[in-house]
Amino acid sequence: MGLSKRCFAEFFGTFWLVFGGCGAALFSAAFPHLGIGFAGVALAFGLSVLTMVYAVGSISGGHFNPAISLGMAAGGRFAWKDVIPYWLAQVIGGIAAAGVLYLIASGKPGFDASASGFASNGYGAHSPGGYALGAVMITEFVLTAFFVFVVMGSTSKRAPAGFAGIAIGLTLTLIHLISIPVDNTSVNPARSTGPALFQGGWAVHQLWVFWLVPLIGGAVGGWIFRMLFDRE
Amino acid sequence: MGLSKRCFAEFFGTFWLVFGGCGAALFSAAFPHLGIGFAGVALAFGLSVLTMVYAVGSISGGHFNPAISLGMAAGGRFAWKDVIPYWLAQVIGGIAAAGVLYLIASGKPGFDASASGFASNGYGAHSPGGYALGAVMITEFVLTAFFVFVVMGSTSKRAPAGFAGIAIGLTLTLIHLISIPVDNTSVNPARSTGPALFQGGWAVHQLWVFWLVPLIGGAVGGWIFRMLFDRE
Amino acid sequence: MGLSKRCFAEFFGTFWLVFGGCGAALFSAAFPHLGIGFAGVALAFGLSVLTMVYAVGSISGGHFNPAISLGMAAGGRFAWKDVIPYWLAQVIGGIAAAGVLYLIASGKPGFDASASGFASNGYGAHSPGGYALGAVMITEFVLTAFFVFVVMGSTSKRAPAGFAGIAIGLTLTLIHLISIPVDNTSVNPARSTGPALFQGGWAVHQLWVFWLVPLIGGAVGGWIFRMLFDRE
Amino acid sequence: MGLSKRCFAEFFGTFWLVFGGCGAALFSAAFPHLGIGFAGVALAFGLSVLTMVYAVGSISGGHFNPAISLGMAAGGRFAWKDVIPYWLAQVIGGIAAAGVLYLIASGKPGFDASASGFASNGYGAHSPGGYALGAVMITEFVLTAFFVFVVMGSTSKRAPAGFAGIAIGLTLTLIHLISIPVDNTSVNPARSTGPALFQGGWAVHQLWVFWLVPLIGGAVGGWIFRMLFDRE
Repeated sequence: MGLSKRCFAEFFGTFWLVFGGCGAALFSAAFPHLGIGFAGVALAFGLSVLTMVYAVGSISGGHFNPAISLGMAAGGRFAWKDVIPYWLAQVIGGIAAAGVLYLIASGKPGFDASASGFASNGYGAHSPGGYALGAVMITEFVLTAFFVFVVMGSTSKRAPAGFAGIAIGLTLTLIHLISIPVDNTSVNPARSTGPALFQGGWAVHQLWVFWLVPLIGGAVGGWIFRMLFDRE
Repeated sequence: MGLSKRCFAEFFGTFWLVFGGCGAALFSAAFPHLGIGFAGVALAFGLSVLTMVYAVGSISGGHFNPAISLGMAAGGRFAWKDVIPYWLAQVIGGIAAAGVLYLIASGKPGFDASASGFASNGYGAHSPGGYALGAVMITEFVLTAFFVFVVMGSTSKRAPAGFAGIAIGLTLTLIHLISIPVDNTSVNPARSTGPALFQGGWAVHQLWVFWLVPLIGGAVGGWIFRMLFDRE
Repeated sequence: MGLSKRCFAEFFGTFWLVFGGCGAALFSAAFPHLGIGFAGVALAFGLSVLTMVYAVGSISGGHFNPAISLGMAAGGRFAWKDVIPYWLAQVIGGIAAAGVLYLIASGKPGFDASASGFASNGYGAHSPGGYALGAVMITEFVLTAFFVFVVMGSTSKRAPAGFAGIAIGLTLTLIHLISIPVDNTSVNPARSTGPALFQGGWAVHQLWVFWLVPLIGGAVGGWIFRMLFDRE
Repeated sequence: MGLSKRCFAEFFGTFWLVFGGCGAALFSAAFPHLGIGFAGVALAFGLSVLTMVYAVGSISGGHFNPAISLGMAAGGRFAWKDVIPYWLAQVIGGIAAAGVLYLIASGKPGFDASASGFASNGYGAHSPGGYALGAVMITEFVLTAFFVFVVMGSTSKRAPAGFAGIAIGLTLTLIHLISIPVDNTSVNPARSTGPALFQGGWAVHQLWVFWLVPLIGGAVGGWIFRMLFDRE
């Protein structure tokens, strides 16, 4: 299918990822007594990817994440020339989703985006558990590398056909089960960018970490898998 | 299979959706200390659809939801002439399930349907989190559009065969993880109608929203997918 | 495979169901602060069946439940002459699992089986939520009928191959999400019998309900599916 | 693929299992108000295996656990001569993961590994629920035997192709739903070894139990399945 249609698929997929994952975090995580907590948010992020991989994965490959597009290119599975168009579609999708979430959140009396953090990623004083920058960088590096590693493996010709959406989506759930307390979990620059723009202030100042480290981690993960298991 | 058998399948599927999802909400969500909370209710709604898609999806298509039947028609995947029979089977199934839930709930001393809300959908003063009508309408529109979008994509010929039930069911789980605090989550007029009739009062007065917006959202979602990815 | 090997498969499967589901209820549900609650128990019951259907479903059919064996016979999918041998293997498996659970539970200082209820099913004063006998009977009837309905549907030739284990296991999770507060959820006489023998007293006196109603419900569910969808 | 590449796959898989499961336990389980609890940890352990089975299961078989390698050898499905190389890769992966977790945890002010237990397995005074050594040994024996039993069954030629990763991963989730209160759940000597080395003291002294019993249980589980269902 043409690049523009594949970019539409990435736009809708990343919209759904940010709308679903960050929406669950904003509206449902801390609802009194009945809230879904971090485990529910982890499930929401994973299911947003699982569902969209089955919906449009056959069209665009189902990245919904600049770090995966880069990692798949580093892994030899994705054309380098398509990386930037995919990134644009993903970032626009993430920003659009954050905008709609902002509209909905504003419909609740007393909403204040900057007080809530608006599901932004952060380190140090803005880490949910107070984790320092170094710990956040290690976490994002390891998790994004393994995320792309699983994507490479579960979509390889050796893996059973059709199950990649389950494996990839639930990897994102697992990643959130581990690391929401560390930095609210990024592993996805597009997911970090949307909420940060509506949160403003500290979230924008810290945004570089959630571009730099996931991209490096993703590239390393894709490259390691390729070197170990895709050659001959 | 004949239309009447397909309508029986839709009746049983929608009964199970309302009995399972609303039953979990009524009996288990707020049980002291050990209750399942909104995350458990989200899982229940999703699993009711996942399980019935595998049980009777090959018979009726597995809609269990007037907004999906309309959206699939708008998406060019379902005969317009079958929409109304499906709606009837779905609404009757939803009402029957709510009736049986009422019978069971009455077996607990002190039960009062109108005090509990009986798992009805609502906005404003009847939104769990106090969300205004506008926020509820945006939420229902976006979520139903994406719901049908995922149904269209995961049941397309390009998608891996057999996995649609997982993708569709877990989309409904994700939708509930996001939006129970907003309006108790509809995206399904048949699910809204059953409980509203037993709750009465405000739930019936607000019911129009949960017919109008999911139907529009579903039609838009089906139409967008068709325009983008089904032509050629 | 021969009947004796199929009965071994049913023994191990039902052992795992009772050990897993009731074990999670006994050890983990109410652990202070970090306990898994009813949702975790619901997941445990479902996963015990899901995992064993993939392990030995191809050997015995994966019933692990007298109501399913009867229901499948009523549905025309299982030989009537094998029902009693399957029941014996299932009940022995359930009792053996309850015995091992009793041994482990006794390793915690202060354990008292009869005070804890030992995960037994009950109505009235022994219902977790205080539900009356009538409500319990309706609940068990509806849930077991739909359980067998899903088993019939997801294992029919029309359904996608291989997914039945997921559908059937997660149906049991859904059933528990709905009804643990009503009667601790049976839908399976073998699951009810094992714990009741170690609890003694009221659990044995009330056990007849959790044989009678699931068996009737299962038979009705299998028969309805057959009449509607398996003929011609 | 050559043994060295298969061992790399086991290294990465076991790293992910310990990093994911123990990481979720350390960072997220007891986070105030929003923590994931034992159910979230159970999900994390299971998803770490589910995801890696799809990623590299086609390369190494996806054991990630010395008890599974031994059990599969006892079950006649794995070459005895490869057991020790697999064990080495698994143990090194588990220790490496615990080391990275230690680094990240140190980034939170006030972290003290020995006070936290560092997700180590233990009995008696070091069992989360105070369970005695005998109860812990029965639990580990039964759970590891069934774990290998499910692995044998779900990867047999009779079972539907491709679903083993779901069955095996979710078996590990179920195992944790049952037994975290008993001994923090091992069933995997490599998982026990990594954290114990960083915890030190009692965790190292008790480590023999979590090598001895899972290995015996795994071998028995594999052997029983083979004797019952793999012969003729």
